[in-house]
Amino acid sequence: MALSTKPLSGMRQRLPGEFRVEKYVTDTLSLCSVQAGFEEYDGPVVEPFALFAAKSGGELAGKQSYCFTDRGGREVILRPEMTPSLARMVAAQGELQLPVRWYSMPLCYRYERPQRGRVREFLQYNLDILGSESLAAELEVILVLQGIMNLFRAPASIYRIGWSSRRFMADALARCGVDQSTRAAVFSAIDKRDKMKGEVWTELLADACASSTIADKVASLVSAGSLSDPWLMDLMQGSSTFDEIVKFNGLLEDVGVTSAVFSPGVVRGLDYYTGIVFELVDTGGENNRSLCGGGRYDDLVGLFGNKKISGVGFGLGVLTLTLFLETYSLIPDSVKKAAPAEVYIAVLSPDEIASAGSLAIFFRRDGIRVMMDVSGKKLGKQYSEAERYGISSVVTVGPDEVETGLYRMKTLSDGVVFTGSPEELSRRLR
Amino acid sequence: MALSTKPLSGMRQRLPGEFRVEKYVTDTLSLCSVQAGFEEYDGPVVEPFALFAAKSGGELAGKQSYCFTDRGGREVILRPEMTPSLARMVAAQGELQLPVRWYSMPLCYRYERPQRGRVREFLQYNLDILGSESLAAELEVILVLQGIMNLFRAPASIYRIGWSSRRFMADALARCGVDQSTRAAVFSAIDKRDKMKGEVWTELLADACASSTIADKVASLVSAGSLSDPWLMDLMQGSSTFDEIVKFNGLLEDVGVTSAVFSPGVVRGLDYYTGIVFELVDTGGENNRSLCGGGRYDDLVGLFGNKKISGVGFGLGVLTLTLFLETYSLIPDSVKKAAPAEVYIAVLSPDEIASAGSLAIFFRRDGIRVMMDVSGKKLGKQYSEAERYGISSVVTVGPDEVETGLYRMKTLSDGVVFTGSPEELSRRLR
Repeated sequence: MALSTKPLSGMRQRLPGEFRVEKYVTDTLSLCSVQAGFEEYDGPVVEPFALFAAKSGGELAGKQSYCFTDRGGREVILRPEMTPSLARMVAAQGELQLPVRWYSMPLCYRYERPQRGRVREFLQYNLDILGSESLAAELEVILVLQGIMNLFRAPASIYRIGWSSRRFMADALARCGVDQSTRAAVFSAIDKRDKMKGEVWTELLADACASSTIADKVASLVSAGSLSDPWLMDLMQGSSTFDEIVKFNGLLEDVGVTSAVFSPGVVRGLDYYTGIVFELVDTGGENNRSLCGGGRYDDLVGLFGNKKISGVGFGLGVLTLTLFLETYSLIPDSVKKAAPAEVYIAVLSPDEIASAGSLAIFFRRDGIRVMMDVSGKKLGKQYSEAERYGISSVVTVGPDEVETGLYRMKTLSDGVVFTGSPEELSRRLR
Repeated sequence: MALSTKPLSGMRQRLPGEFRVEKYVTDTLSLCSVQAGFEEYDGPVVEPFALFAAKSGGELAGKQSYCFTDRGGREVILRPEMTPSLARMVAAQGELQLPVRWYSMPLCYRYERPQRGRVREFLQYNLDILGSESLAAELEVILVLQGIMNLFRAPASIYRIGWSSRRFMADALARCGVDQSTRAAVFSAIDKRDKMKGEVWTELLADACASSTIADKVASLVSAGSLSDPWLMDLMQGSSTFDEIVKFNGLLEDVGVTSAVFSPGVVRGLDYYTGIVFELVDTGGENNRSLCGGGRYDDLVGLFGNKKISGVGFGLGVLTLTLFLETYSLIPDSVKKAAPAEVYIAVLSPDEIASAGSLAIFFRRDGIRVMMDVSGKKLGKQYSEAERYGISSVVTVGPDEVETGLYRMKTLSDGVVFTGSPEELSRRLR
């Protein structure tokens, strides 16, 4: 029986044209990271299950995970996210001078039902600062995120960076009357707000709260539109957690990150966030799809028995971002249509293969991208091949050229022919 | 109990300094591929087990594999190599114009006992041409391999590209008296020649052959040093498979790839090779470690029910190559010591965080790599941080600078101070 020509559902396969688009996106993400002094790292795809069971939250390490027992009897998982591995790497480096600024482009895995923008194997860009408790760290990672959107030329009208604080929300919820025993359920309900219809959500929230009075207050809190909302200011009087978010809001305003908007409904699903949390959402379409989520985590590095090291960072799905960019036509045509070479070396007959090879070596040493014919087809077909690839020039190698050392180079766009030595051709190509 | 700070044995973890070295290697490999008109692609890490059971050879899909049953009941494997996925991708593209020239940098997995240069999770560079039956395709992939060694400035004395042909060897073995029933065992014995002591190998070969006369002939064949060896020429009289390798040898000589040496002992382990096979070996040390292996495979794409498409390519372990380059001091110091930014923005107090952020945005827009302080430490410590990173300039942001709009920039190497507006500083930095 013939094998299937399809990859497994939800798995990442990229033909060259698709790869170029993905690489344009990941290169841009890398460039923004590097411009802000971040250094790249990577960790294993295969990790101990226990690393994620501890802190990622029930579903990620549970029924949404790829976990199995390896040949040595180890319980392993294909990482569903990067942050626990990052925390481990930082914890292991006793000598590491803090803070560190690191980024990565890991493959991650989640066993979910595949749909548009949601797959099982995906690249997730990660950017983190560890070892700083200053709000400057939150500001810096959001500046990188803003820089990414600027570099992609995304207009302010199509996205928003919504932010809040877990610490603030815990405080605010307590002031609304939510007690310790129901807090997790209320957080979880708030996290689901954008994923369901209003009335369904109201019901979910009512179920999570101990009374309808409390549920009403929580609903008011979540829909508070600004930090100067009188009801909110009254609720948070004398609160240091409120002072912190007011201060952070001032920083964002002073730096001019107008796309960042205080959004008390933003709590993020991952269990380890403790302070400021934020997400990037697409606001141009019907759906407020989240492109990226992040925040501050205080207790992750401590899991490895070290002293506490606070971190702040975010993860961004490369595919989700790519679909967003494609929706708004923000992937340049030049990326999709890039030619794989500057010159095509056409070979008249098998007798000239070695000479063509020598010419290819010569041009490549000069930094020119050269596609040498390997098809053995007739000359006309070789020219068509070059044209199909968008390669602008073709040099023909036949017995006359080998004998004289002079080669004909044709520019396909205008048909102009130039004849010269390899040195002269190379100079013209560069 | 605290979690372990170590990754699982044999898994790939890269701190920024290690990552830079690896990236220098992979970037160089990519550059050589792109210069020869190859396009990058990628496939899934998680693949159907059946894809590899068919053709990779017993051990790779068997006891050396990471395979498991996923939550949907599928028998899956973490790919041990790339070529079967590549063949599937080409088979699926009915419209694809052949030949294609593709390369990739996949993560692959093998459950082996970890040791120096052999790990369980590794990057393996792959370069292939599919859809050409011309020897120009073999020549082109070997030219890329040679170009890689040149770009790394590896002297000819430390490596060799050994090559032979499976087709030729099948023919030659038959002429030595090896029959169909023992051929696989003899191939397997030949493949192990470089991995064991002479007398042990002689015994292994004798066991595989039907008689000691045959074993002696096979031993002579494998140690034949050149294509003009009289015994070999006599053995292969009138053989078209011999003609083919003589022709290929001529191509290599004419192009001047002197590192490529006919080596009848090279057969490569993978089951799918059918024609020319080759490997790159380290000849400078005591061990002839194989850095790369490749060859022509005729029947791989046909597994998917399509018409036969012949391919030729090779795989090269990034870690093995990196260790080789490090052994011979071929990784430039500048790679190991690269500074993560051109300028460090020191922040006098939390009151200047927003102003520092604005200045960072300004410089980054001009393409300058900027590390902004997020530590909140005293100024002296911020200067030390910049120095430790090798960042050449520090700009200080304090209340005076914010008020006047004029900033002090110090060059750490000579202590020279320049004061100016952001525009002036930016011009000086570029």
